[in-house]
Parts: sequence; structure tokens; C-alpha cells
Amino acid sequence: MGRTSDAREKILAAAQRLIEQRGYSALGVAEICKAAGVPKGSFYYFFESKEALALAVIDEQWNAQRRDWAVVLGGDEQPLYRLRRLFEATADVQRAGQRSCGTVSGCLFGNLTLELSNQTESIRARLQEIFESQVEMVRAVVDEARERGDVGVVDATEAARAIVAQLEGQVLFAKLYNDADRLDAMWANCLALLGARMPSGSASR
Amino acid sequence: MGRTSDAREKILAAAQRLIEQRGYSALGVAEICKAAGVPKGSFYYFFESKEALALAVIDEQWNAQRRDWAVVLGGDEQPLYRLRRLFEATADVQRAGQRSCGTVSGCLFGNLTLELSNQTESIRARLQEIFESQVEMVRAVVDEARERGDVGVVDATEAARAIVAQLEGQVLFAKLYNDADRLDAMWANCLALLGARMPSGSASR
Repeated sequence: MGRTSDAREKILAAAQRLIEQRGYSALGVAEICKAAGVPKGSFYYFFESKEALALAVIDEQWNAQRRDWAVVLGGDEQPLYRLRRLFEATADVQRAGQRSCGTVSGCLFGNLTLELSNQTESIRARLQEIFESQVEMVRAVVDEARERGDVGVVDATEAARAIVAQLEGQVLFAKLYNDADRLDAMWANCLALLGARMPSGSASR
Repeated sequence: MGRTSDAREKILAAAQRLIEQRGYSALGVAEICKAAGVPKGSFYYFFESKEALALAVIDEQWNAQRRDWAVVLGGDEQPLYRLRRLFEATADVQRAGQRSCGTVSGCLFGNLTLELSNQTESIRARLQEIFESQVEMVRAVVDEARERGDVGVVDATEAARAIVAQLEGQVLFAKLYNDADRLDAMWANCLALLGARMPSGSASR
């Protein structure tokens, strides 16, 4: 039991690393198993198909990222400062990836959206759910900021979509230029999208 | 002469269509030649490698798109209205693609950035040049708007980057949700990023 569960984790970890580096289409099951150090036969014991593995990688990544987002966005600071922490945390993740594999690997969900959403409806549906969750998490913070009179937006959902779109666009540039500092512009861009001024005074609520 | 030149065009057109639909990594030279209706032997007469073909597809696409952008952004209207035309033209292109192939295929340059920029340095360099040109074209219009006092931004290049990032992010969502109407938010988002109000009065300069 211990060993088979370990093999599943090894396959997932290897697949995540390889998908981040080279995308999904370029990978074969044999290569994933080799990188994971597990026999190819065991792959189909855990995963019905390469697509099922991709969905598992996406779920694993989103489970971890959602926890991080919840911690950052549910913190004690003023709402706008919590959004800033989200962008800083995103830049930190990209910098850590760059240190470990030499390149900024971008957002797994954005990467797979552009690579796969028109080919695999199950992956499209899962990615839609994830981006809807991201927008909803940001919208809740924008609403809090609106209740405090910190921002001038009328439609908090539309504003949250613009912020998540801006984040995806800037992460794309961070990947293209292999430079996580591209994300340093996010905070000012977010404030502009929200019709907010740079908050003054203490960060705490 | 006429026939060989025709074969090159056929390969380019087929490759562009297939890359838009399924990305680059999933394609083989044999499949591209089959879709183009040319013998596989002729591929290497025109292109040294699949990578060389990808660069040619990128150049062809950017040559056409740059002309479109230059027409739209160099028009007779007020600068901010010209930016709106750019977003409308982008949505029109995505809608036309959706009508012809059933799905919003997104931005070829964004797609290839996320799929390939960490694998192929020649493609990364070409895509960097293209996005720098896009930012520069938008920056020139933002500068015009600033000279007229229409916008409140301090750094026109940073603002242009934010607009192009927003466009890439919203095109990603248009692709994910297979809905080009996602781009309808661009105009309001762009005005917010520029610290501009919705212009009043006539659109002409």
C-alpha cells in the first residue's frame, strides 16, 4: 500500500514538473514514468489515461494554490493590501520556480488553457472552474474594499476578472522575458483597475 | 517557380491553422504536409526544420497583424478611440476564427509564449520582439493621449505594457470560455489603467 501510493505521488510530481517545463502535448507516458522512476505498467494502475493524469496534476496544483490564496486573501490587513500580498506571493512562486529549474515557468492553468482548452473539453471545464474560483476569491476582497469606500468600481465581479486577466497577462510576460520582476507592476495596475489610490496609513484593518 | 512558391504558401497556411487549433508540440511534419496537400519531401526544400516553419508562421502572422494595428492605431480619431478600435478589431478577429473553426483560438503569440518560450530560444526572442513592438505601438497612442491631457499616467511604456497584458489575459479568457464577448470589457479596463474617463463628444481629433 505504502509503495503504490508512493508511486502515484511520484508520477504526479514528475508530470507536474515536466508539464511546467515543456507543456502537455510534448510528453509521453513512458517519459513521465522514467522521470518518476516507476515502471510504465504502474501508470495505468493509477491513471486511466494521460488526460486523467493532467486533470490530477491540475487538481493537485489548484488544491495547494487555493490554500495559499485563502491564507493571503483572508489575512488581517486592509483588503487592498491583501491583494498586494497575492501579487507578491505570485512573484515569489515564480522566482522559486526560476531558482529551481532556471526559467520562469508561468501559470500552469494559463499554460494549459492556451495549449489545451480547445482540444480537451474535460480540461477546459476544470480550468474554467478554477479561474471562476480565482475571480470569486478576488471579488470578495474587492467587495470588502468597496464597502470601506476604498475603491470606485461599480461591478466587483468585472473588476475581479480584470485583475485576474491582468495577472495572467503579466505572468505571461514574466515567462516570456524570464523575469519575475514583471509582476512588480501588478499592484499599481490593480489599483488603477479598481479606481483606487495607493492606500495611506497602516496596513492593518 | 509558380508551383514551388505555391507549395510554401500551402505549408505555411496549413501550419498556421493546425498550430492555432492544436499547438506546436502536438504536430508532426508529415501531418502538416498532408493537410497542406504537398509531398513531405518538399517540406525540407522550403524549411530547414519544424522550428524554422514555426518562425515563418509567426513572422507571417505578425506582418499581417502589424499592418492591421498600424491602420487602426494610426487612424483619424482621438487616441483613446483608436485604442477602442484595436480591442474591437481583436474581438472581430476572434469571432471570425470562431465562425471558421468553431472555437476561439486566442492569440498565436500568447499561445506560443506559454507553450514554447522556455524550450526554444529563437522562438522566445522572436516573440519578445513582437510584444515589444505591440507595446511600442500602444505607447505611442498613450503618449498622444497624454499630450492632449486625456490620461493621467506618468509612465506611458508601463501603461502600454499593462494594456497589452490585459489584452492577452482577456484573450486567454475568451479562448477558455470560447466567447469573444469577453473582450468587450477591454475598453473600460484600458481607460481605468490609463486613469482616463470615458471620452465625451466627437470621436474625431
